[in-house]
Amino acid sequence: MKKSDFFELKEIFESHDNILILTHKSPDGDTLGCGFALCAYLRDIGKKANVINNENFPVRYNFLYDGYYVQDFEPQFIVAVDVADKSLFGSHLTRYMEEGAVDVCIDHHISNRGYAKRTFLDGKASAAALILFEYFKTIGYKISDFIAMCLYTAIATDTGCFKYQNTTPKTHIAAAELMQYDIGFEHINRKMFDVKSKGRIKVEQSVINNMEYYFNDRCTMIVITTELMNNCGAEPAEFEGLASIPLEIEGVVIGITVKQRHENVFKLSVRTTEEVDASAFCRRFGGGGHIRAAGCEIQGNLQEVRQIVIKAVAEALGEEYDD
Amino acid sequence: MKKSDFFELKEIFESHDNILILTHKSPDGDTLGCGFALCAYLRDIGKKANVINNENFPVRYNFLYDGYYVQDFEPQFIVAVDVADKSLFGSHLTRYMEEGAVDVCIDHHISNRGYAKRTFLDGKASAAALILFEYFKTIGYKISDFIAMCLYTAIATDTGCFKYQNTTPKTHIAAAELMQYDIGFEHINRKMFDVKSKGRIKVEQSVINNMEYYFNDRCTMIVITTELMNNCGAEPAEFEGLASIPLEIEGVVIGITVKQRHENVFKLSVRTTEEVDASAFCRRFGGGGHIRAAGCEIQGNLQEVRQIVIKAVAEALGEEYDD
Repeated sequence: MKKSDFFELKEIFESHDNILILTHKSPDGDTLGCGFALCAYLRDIGKKANVINNENFPVRYNFLYDGYYVQDFEPQFIVAVDVADKSLFGSHLTRYMEEGAVDVCIDHHISNRGYAKRTFLDGKASAAALILFEYFKTIGYKISDFIAMCLYTAIATDTGCFKYQNTTPKTHIAAAELMQYDIGFEHINRKMFDVKSKGRIKVEQSVINNMEYYFNDRCTMIVITTELMNNCGAEPAEFEGLASIPLEIEGVVIGITVKQRHENVFKLSVRTTEEVDASAFCRRFGGGGHIRAAGCEIQGNLQEVRQIVIKAVAEALGEEYDD
Repeated sequence: MKKSDFFELKEIFESHDNILILTHKSPDGDTLGCGFALCAYLRDIGKKANVINNENFPVRYNFLYDGYYVQDFEPQFIVAVDVADKSLFGSHLTRYMEEGAVDVCIDHHISNRGYAKRTFLDGKASAAALILFEYFKTIGYKISDFIAMCLYTAIATDTGCFKYQNTTPKTHIAAAELMQYDIGFEHINRKMFDVKSKGRIKVEQSVINNMEYYFNDRCTMIVITTELMNNCGAEPAEFEGLASIPLEIEGVVIGITVKQRHENVFKLSVRTTEEVDASAFCRRFGGGGHIRAAGCEIQGNLQEVRQIVIKAVAEALGEEYDD
């Protein structure tokens, strides 16, 4: 993004009021970090602003909205942060899926659908928060410790704490600057990456105990049935975000999470290393996504779905398989 | 450290040959990364140099010594990297524990005992590798991709991938520079932080299944008996580095790993959050360490040791406890 883009954005914010900030469904650290950082900034420059999501804000991120309160106003200007497509607003916010409903979108997804009237996109940014950080620096706005904390959280969570391929030198340099504010980055990281609830531990134990290995352990699969979820004694929320587990085993090149949606409908989350194209794998079943992380839905009973998946894995790996 | 220190170090390296580099026992990414980076540099400037350790180099770090070969020479100059005390050379290298046996030590442990004839110490550096990186930059030495990979690995592993409190702005800025070399940082991170062997998964499952909770889950304990190790069907090496697990549960302020050494001897590894001083806790039993990570040894049978530990935890937490 160019300097002039940031000054255009500044002009836009300064010439509007009663601003509603939309975050994407199944909200993560980036969309929430951006949402609350932007809200704090807008309120600081004298605007009325709120942040909303399709669901309640997850407790996991409670430190981002600890001092947040809803302001009373009729929204006149709509800004989406880290939302690639309007379908990601979720079913409670369908009114914003209409043509022209969103005024500004700030995003880093290369796949952004351009649904907003004006989109500020940097597809190379590790996190949408990096765009916001550059915005604040460019316009010379002195961010608060709170805003720094929101931005750091967003950047750290979207990069797996600077671990993943999407991390860039810019990501590290932003972190170096943001951690100099009073944000307690080590507490944020402990909460985001190291700590699990007892329920979550139970769930992970249960799925790992039942992990299935195929093709000389090059493929692993975890299956989460409704029955397992009911019997595990943990909240449904504890079953989110398990998709990375099958790929955590040494030597695995494709890791699959099969989660029961309805009696004969299963959702697949596929994670791969360089050898396999997850997106191509899922497209065969009408799904899609990124090259290392994709998803799709398959109908049938569990036994049928398992057979279909193993057969497709065999083909992807060039392995023999008789079903 | 001052610029003049680095130029002194350059002068030292240039005026010596047949250099042996010592790494600490139970070698980690920092000591090995420094060792192999320094070795590559010394060989590049025309010196003979080798790296040794008390044990074999761990397979986990094989990418650091993939192209390494031992050179044939009689050591004339001894350099220790990331080794705070000569006792850390290990039982096979006792000859280097003698007074004056080590010529130079490059280290970041504030607790360094000053056993070398000349110590280059920066207690504020997140990793010893940061000192080496600053050395190369200061003297204007153009590092290779391999050296960059060694240094990145050292820095990433010593900071938990930029997660822990010892991370500083300098750490991030170094990472930003090092990742611009051809090092495949995302593969390093996947190998170091995300991938586990099947044996390790088994071990973790087993210790988590048997995790003990005390004082409203503010204390957790895992107990690793010789029997458990024998029956788990995993290599003894898979039982290393489990000490962080008990602290991974939400709300836990003291996490204890009790590992059987001999029939009636147990080693404690204690990890704490801000509420408890791990070092003080362990000092009561003749041990010590850092404020958040410390260790000690307790004698007795398992039941006795458990009672002693729980009683000490009760006192540390200000809880009632009747044994």
